[in-house]
Amino acid sequence: MKTKAIFYHAGCPVCVAAEQNVANAIDPAKYDVEVVHLGKDKSRLKEAESAGVKSVPAIVLDGTAFHINFGAAITDLK
Amino acid sequence: MKTKAIFYHAGCPVCVAAEQNVANAIDPAKYDVEVVHLGKDKSRLKEAESAGVKSVPAIVLDGTAFHINFGAAITDLK
Repeated sequence: MKTKAIFYHAGCPVCVAAEQNVANAIDPAKYDVEVVHLGKDKSRLKEAESAGVKSVPAIVLDGTAFHINFGAAITDLK
Repeated sequence: MKTKAIFYHAGCPVCVAAEQNVANAIDPAKYDVEVVHLGKDKSRLKEAESAGVKSVPAIVLDGTAFHINFGAAITDLK
């Protein structure tokens, strides 16, 4: 059964590298990957914070937030 | 063509969570995932550092190091 993976970013260089490598490496047989630009889509900030996202880029897999390197703090995107 | 992905960890709780989620989410059609325990296999430390790994857990995809959350600094594993 496929579950949802959400990749949160803010367009920063660190985010782009993570998207091109990590987000694209996710197994499409296991996950539907959604990419959310928190700088542009601020309505998703609350949901990201609820999942435990503290900085971008980050990927939420099965409800757990994994921060990938460090691009920007989520508090700087508000 | 498959390339190699190397997941470096040190057995810490943060590492285990990252392995179960992120490493297992990697598309096996794109990558051969190798899991390296740097606490046990210190001979791999140099190679990990050369790839830019500064802390574990981390995954190296196409030669680029992506640090996932923070378990331990690589300098603490020596």
